[in-house]
Amino acid sequence: MSNLFGKIFTISSFGESHGSAIGVVIDGCLPNIEVDFELIKRDLLRRKPGQSLVSSPRNETEEFEILSGVFEGKTLGTPIAILVRNSDIKSSDYDVIKNIFRPSHADYTYEAKYGIRDHRGGGRQSARETVARVLAGSFAKMILNKLGIYIQAYVSQIHTIQVQQPYFNLNLDQTETNMVRCPDPEAAKWMEDAILKAKDEGDSLGGIVSCVIKGVPVGLGEPVFDKLHADLGKAMLSINAVKGFDIGSGFDSVVRKGSELNDAFRLDESEVRTKTNNSGGIQGGISNGEDIFFRVAFKPVASIKHEQESITKSLDQVNFSIAGRHDSCVVPRAVPIVEAMAALVIVDHYLRNASYKMQPFS
Amino acid sequence: MSNLFGKIFTISSFGESHGSAIGVVIDGCLPNIEVDFELIKRDLLRRKPGQSLVSSPRNETEEFEILSGVFEGKTLGTPIAILVRNSDIKSSDYDVIKNIFRPSHADYTYEAKYGIRDHRGGGRQSARETVARVLAGSFAKMILNKLGIYIQAYVSQIHTIQVQQPYFNLNLDQTETNMVRCPDPEAAKWMEDAILKAKDEGDSLGGIVSCVIKGVPVGLGEPVFDKLHADLGKAMLSINAVKGFDIGSGFDSVVRKGSELNDAFRLDESEVRTKTNNSGGIQGGISNGEDIFFRVAFKPVASIKHEQESITKSLDQVNFSIAGRHDSCVVPRAVPIVEAMAALVIVDHYLRNASYKMQPFS
Amino acid sequence: MSNLFGKIFTISSFGESHGSAIGVVIDGCLPNIEVDFELIKRDLLRRKPGQSLVSSPRNETEEFEILSGVFEGKTLGTPIAILVRNSDIKSSDYDVIKNIFRPSHADYTYEAKYGIRDHRGGGRQSARETVARVLAGSFAKMILNKLGIYIQAYVSQIHTIQVQQPYFNLNLDQTETNMVRCPDPEAAKWMEDAILKAKDEGDSLGGIVSCVIKGVPVGLGEPVFDKLHADLGKAMLSINAVKGFDIGSGFDSVVRKGSELNDAFRLDESEVRTKTNNSGGIQGGISNGEDIFFRVAFKPVASIKHEQESITKSLDQVNFSIAGRHDSCVVPRAVPIVEAMAALVIVDHYLRNASYKMQPFS
Amino acid sequence: MSNLFGKIFTISSFGESHGSAIGVVIDGCLPNIEVDFELIKRDLLRRKPGQSLVSSPRNETEEFEILSGVFEGKTLGTPIAILVRNSDIKSSDYDVIKNIFRPSHADYTYEAKYGIRDHRGGGRQSARETVARVLAGSFAKMILNKLGIYIQAYVSQIHTIQVQQPYFNLNLDQTETNMVRCPDPEAAKWMEDAILKAKDEGDSLGGIVSCVIKGVPVGLGEPVFDKLHADLGKAMLSINAVKGFDIGSGFDSVVRKGSELNDAFRLDESEVRTKTNNSGGIQGGISNGEDIFFRVAFKPVASIKHEQESITKSLDQVNFSIAGRHDSCVVPRAVPIVEAMAALVIVDHYLRNASYKMQPFS
Repeated sequence: MSNLFGKIFTISSFGESHGSAIGVVIDGCLPNIEVDFELIKRDLLRRKPGQSLVSSPRNETEEFEILSGVFEGKTLGTPIAILVRNSDIKSSDYDVIKNIFRPSHADYTYEAKYGIRDHRGGGRQSARETVARVLAGSFAKMILNKLGIYIQAYVSQIHTIQVQQPYFNLNLDQTETNMVRCPDPEAAKWMEDAILKAKDEGDSLGGIVSCVIKGVPVGLGEPVFDKLHADLGKAMLSINAVKGFDIGSGFDSVVRKGSELNDAFRLDESEVRTKTNNSGGIQGGISNGEDIFFRVAFKPVASIKHEQESITKSLDQVNFSIAGRHDSCVVPRAVPIVEAMAALVIVDHYLRNASYKMQPFS
Repeated sequence: MSNLFGKIFTISSFGESHGSAIGVVIDGCLPNIEVDFELIKRDLLRRKPGQSLVSSPRNETEEFEILSGVFEGKTLGTPIAILVRNSDIKSSDYDVIKNIFRPSHADYTYEAKYGIRDHRGGGRQSARETVARVLAGSFAKMILNKLGIYIQAYVSQIHTIQVQQPYFNLNLDQTETNMVRCPDPEAAKWMEDAILKAKDEGDSLGGIVSCVIKGVPVGLGEPVFDKLHADLGKAMLSINAVKGFDIGSGFDSVVRKGSELNDAFRLDESEVRTKTNNSGGIQGGISNGEDIFFRVAFKPVASIKHEQESITKSLDQVNFSIAGRHDSCVVPRAVPIVEAMAALVIVDHYLRNASYKMQPFS
Repeated sequence: MSNLFGKIFTISSFGESHGSAIGVVIDGCLPNIEVDFELIKRDLLRRKPGQSLVSSPRNETEEFEILSGVFEGKTLGTPIAILVRNSDIKSSDYDVIKNIFRPSHADYTYEAKYGIRDHRGGGRQSARETVARVLAGSFAKMILNKLGIYIQAYVSQIHTIQVQQPYFNLNLDQTETNMVRCPDPEAAKWMEDAILKAKDEGDSLGGIVSCVIKGVPVGLGEPVFDKLHADLGKAMLSINAVKGFDIGSGFDSVVRKGSELNDAFRLDESEVRTKTNNSGGIQGGISNGEDIFFRVAFKPVASIKHEQESITKSLDQVNFSIAGRHDSCVVPRAVPIVEAMAALVIVDHYLRNASYKMQPFS
Repeated sequence: MSNLFGKIFTISSFGESHGSAIGVVIDGCLPNIEVDFELIKRDLLRRKPGQSLVSSPRNETEEFEILSGVFEGKTLGTPIAILVRNSDIKSSDYDVIKNIFRPSHADYTYEAKYGIRDHRGGGRQSARETVARVLAGSFAKMILNKLGIYIQAYVSQIHTIQVQQPYFNLNLDQTETNMVRCPDPEAAKWMEDAILKAKDEGDSLGGIVSCVIKGVPVGLGEPVFDKLHADLGKAMLSINAVKGFDIGSGFDSVVRKGSELNDAFRLDESEVRTKTNNSGGIQGGISNGEDIFFRVAFKPVASIKHEQESITKSLDQVNFSIAGRHDSCVVPRAVPIVEAMAALVIVDHYLRNASYKMQPFS
């Protein structure tokens, strides 16, 4: 049951990295939504390996097939199954790790949990699984766009290079104009250099993806356990290589006082607004109409070319190096994945909130 | 459905701050567990307001009643309903906020979502709800203790005062020896001073609770969406005033390289272990047998005595001050809550993992 | 997790027959619903033992306490916890069965599954648990009543005595005018006689409860697994002593031909209606606007005064008789339980359907 | 969320009758199960149209492709996605019903609920969806077979022709020896004749599928809402054309007395057994180790060749006839579907029960 996500807009993800296909079934998508095929393609390409010098050279064609749930270009309200065939597979690259547990990968834990694993390309633990998330997220975005809700993620830090401005001082439209998806062109240049240097060294870098969601109406999110930011947090922490999440003033809240941090209410043309937005658009787990803003911390990927110590399935100590094609930094490619997961959470809570809006009760 | 947590060990939380009672129903607790009444009492007292100079003076007696699911001192396997009556209620303290939305509280968002709210003591948005979590968590701990799994949370930072040592260099047994629940006695003293100063100023402070879980077997956690740290993250982010979560090397991972961060495998008396534990005990979402380690960031509570700007339900701009009894810093009292939520996640995943251990399949 | 029911309007039931209390937590009730205390009382009394000569003499007072979720007479949208204390308990009546497995009860299966059981009054297996269902069902009815949806169950058969008319030829308002809750006064008389005779003989009788739901709008129910009648069926089959369920033409469909059974569509003042209603108001799992009609078969209760053969926990063969206070026929008391479960299913599907009605999509 | 079934062994079904494919994703299948490809093929063929004179002539090739979750012939514990491409599609046959609501089909209710529908072959409402169930059920059977649990369904009634013997007096091995899947050869002959006659008349017949499950251990099923027979009932009622379900003595219980119906316990080589099995193998919702036995009532399919009255989408009254290729009686083809749904319920409860068997608690 761990491959299901969402309560009303529910997705079921499947596929191994070097198996036949990666795919997803979306159950609970609204009917009569015109399918935006360009949006799907665009997000798949943004996630795709081999898209630029800073990403892995694996050359997936990423052609998707919709098997069900869409009729004459519109959603039916029935399950939407979509798949992307795996191509350009070089499983032989992975023969060396068939019996070795790669450090900080999930080879060992999968083997221990299941007693079996598909070692080729990392099998199910591979970030190739995120194709399913991007596919589903694009359908979530189609609904959100009709509601005037827009999600924009961007790279705000790579290794030690940090964008210094808050999101509202940046031109987020510039995000897609460079390889690293950083809306600050100068920082972007430094980031690219850092990634290419790490690539040369056979090493890897981490970073932070920041995400802004505009247009979320007041009232999404359920108090207590399914707080909107708790569900966003889980969604982000479920992405490969993510080690941390914070919302609004986040970890920085710790060193500030209540009197500095509270968001005073004000009226703006008879609309309730806050003067500041340290809450990150969510109060008590419920959206308050301000921009939702959060950060996601990615560790450097575990696949590096350096020689490493490890052990084999038969419990021998070994030194080895990983071949295969890997990103030195996945953070730029994680941008559409963060957006997709955010879209899934928001659309699900939008639909969960629908019952409160029902006549004759609202 | 937002007041339910867990898939197999499921809890249903209920109660408003100034209503009749706070309580919880636990569905899915194993049968034949001897109920450790002392453990329940101890954790309730650790969470209780008024326990020390650094906490709120509200004097709840916190007597609990078990209504079902326990027979002759043992769990039956049927739902365990427990309640704590609310006492020492001064709802009149809250009359002033009946029509005012307190900044950075959930008054406005509850009102907007539901069109009604119990303003007394914050109603359902009050952290008094966490009594339910602690009650349920104590049952989870009873199971975990039998399995040799122990959870210890502690305060590692209050405002700018930070414990400088990693958890494994601290004597965690000292955690409960001071009012702030900090295992570093010197830091603890500074923290107490800081909190008392903030109290004098009518202001509030945030902090960080760190948590260590020892004895978790290899294999807990489900890959993809229900990664063990994703579920821990959601659990923590659902606690009032939490703004961030990270696991293992967490946000610090960002500025380190793959070659520095990877946890090499080694053999320790034919057991698979890692040399370092930047993974925080979880790889690919599945526990690897090392200590699980994570951090939870709390903002300073929103209730401060300073005069603040806000608006009323009838959309008038007002300046007002909050009376009522509040903590200047909830972080010390959050320690048992963090532990309780961690216990709920671990026991749930322990039970979810049971099917993989079934004969004749394992 | 087996004590939870519903996806959006979710209930969590708890309590043993001779424990402290029976109760329920409702999570997902709409806010701002005026609580109809009379409705709750009325349905509790209809379910109550000792209400007439044909029911068990246990004299529960059935006073309920609402612990949360209701403020100034209205629902808050937060969890509604309600409990009924157990009273008039004669647990000593049950000492004899502490170590004996009563035939066709769940003593043996509980013991085998859990390794422990509360034998007093049957513990959790007792139909006393249905108090929780009736409490929750009354809140569901409050919502449905505002929507013009009304549920009426009645006894249509006791042992061999059968009401001969279909529901639409009966005056269902007469249902509550007799002890057996049968709207056909003549049949009711025969049924009473049959039950009293069985009581004299220390034996028990089964019967059928029929249920009509009027006013359900077109479109409730989800195709494929959560068909409206599949969820109704599960709800009914989860009631103690139920052995069968059918919808519309039900088991009788088997001996009729498609040409006889199909419900032709017709227009009635530009509304789509069917000429006949063999579908029982549900087509393809979705309500079609006609009356929903189904039947629920109850076996005679297992508690009889006859001497019976059985075995003990220590696996000795024994002959024994059950004391305790039991109904000779629970079917009349099951009427409000059937209604409650129906109300829970319909309100849940009403809320699940809300998202399809959302602007700007509908 | 209506296309998901099961709590631990969870399936996600997708596909329209005349879309690209029908398929299923199984999440929660145990790892290391050897895939029995012959079993999958055999059950697909048993469900397949065109398999005999008594079934629809649509000639699906029913070739399945496993896209994920299986590696070197064994299950990985990761999601198993399987699809069957739709072939031999004659959508033009359905042009006539594009705008007409067929009586006792779900054309009208789908249109009303979703505002859109794929009319071709009935789209999602078509029983072609049951391919997904049979595919998933075959994996459930692989697990059950290893546990010594066997499921055998058979046709016990077609229209007025009824098998007179209880299942334990029949040779169930003869079930597959005739076209109607009836283990009583004489009755089978009469049934075939009846179906062929109905076919000639352009009419349709209903019937009853009975199902026996042998080898279920004591203890499966959760008390209260997820009683084993309640989940079986829901599973069966979710199958197209099913109108009723009963367990053990079922509807017949109504006319029998407690003293006749109770299943006395006895010892059989120190195993607890019952003398009779009116409980149908389930007591208090929990399996008791006896054979599980239930019946499923199918109405005659709604597609008949007779002229029928109906209305169009634009609300005009019309008379029309259905072309297309349809079964006159689907009951024989429903046998593997009933088995598949039963297998899904049993395996799910088997896995849910695993936690009670955990060391050191059991």
